[in-house]
Amino acid sequence: MSDGAPPIADPHDLARLIRGVADFPAPGIEFKDITPLLGDGAALRRAVTGLVGALPFDGVELDRVVGVEARGFILGAAVAVHLGVGFAPVRKPGKLPWETETETYALEYGTDRLEIHRDAVRPGERVLVVDDVIATGGTAAATARLVERLGAEVAAFAFLVELGFLGGRRVIAPHPTVSLVRYP
Amino acid sequence: MSDGAPPIADPHDLARLIRGVADFPAPGIEFKDITPLLGDGAALRRAVTGLVGALPFDGVELDRVVGVEARGFILGAAVAVHLGVGFAPVRKPGKLPWETETETYALEYGTDRLEIHRDAVRPGERVLVVDDVIATGGTAAATARLVERLGAEVAAFAFLVELGFLGGRRVIAPHPTVSLVRYP
Repeated sequence: MSDGAPPIADPHDLARLIRGVADFPAPGIEFKDITPLLGDGAALRRAVTGLVGALPFDGVELDRVVGVEARGFILGAAVAVHLGVGFAPVRKPGKLPWETETETYALEYGTDRLEIHRDAVRPGERVLVVDDVIATGGTAAATARLVERLGAEVAAFAFLVELGFLGGRRVIAPHPTVSLVRYP
Repeated sequence: MSDGAPPIADPHDLARLIRGVADFPAPGIEFKDITPLLGDGAALRRAVTGLVGALPFDGVELDRVVGVEARGFILGAAVAVHLGVGFAPVRKPGKLPWETETETYALEYGTDRLEIHRDAVRPGERVLVVDDVIATGGTAAATARLVERLGAEVAAFAFLVELGFLGGRRVIAPHPTVSLVRYP
């Protein structure tokens, strides 16, 4: 469904269910809309098992999944249930009701913030950070800082879609990073 | 963990992992914080299987799960993967990139809107609507109207937490409604 450049990696046959939407959220940007993929039960399950299978270690070595608001909640929670571990949300400011840690990260113009509950992950845990898309890596890096500030370790990042041309993978190196559909 | 009234129904032993947070989001309100429950891998899985098991029909009769932004994405997606069906998000205005249907619903002061992609559910489908909490039922009813406008049927609603004193169940009747932790 994507109208843009074909992906350079798509081992789970998911890219045809990603829809390119022109000029969203701003003129000149082609948005990768994953809702057709999420809406396909078989593809959704392949995405969950594919992300876990792509990790460079066994999933049983993970203690927790952290998902980034809002689309990261979708695959993150499903991956957590698949692994049998707990799920912790990272949210926009003011959404989490209890005590939080906050990280600021840069946007194209200005900054934004992400929050995590102080008891969301425990010291020493190995955490998998899940989001739908890695673009510039800004939110992923901020999420890693939140996890690390709570004394836990980011064992890996897992993304459904990787926009390679934006270079986010380098921003979050040397953490292991897996993605299922990678655009060059 | 909740400091308020004990639940009147908690067959899956989940209520002790719900944290009462005083004066959130406004003074005088005790927020039911489900993040400790989501963070417990065994409880999260019990919530997913418990919601499906509580339905008044077999899960194989469902075609799709619709989850309401943002916390409804967490359990909604996990339930969808458990059932092997697709997941469709209902979102706040301006978040969905493609063509949408919109519904307006009343808040205590003013109104808000919810959107769904026009291809999110198909005519004739039987849809399970999942959210974390049912309070007044306003967002649930608006979600049902979106599903029905696309020609599908709300087979049931499933909520982790039900705030019975707010009467939401009556607002969405006669749709079947299940909840796992019910406060009187």
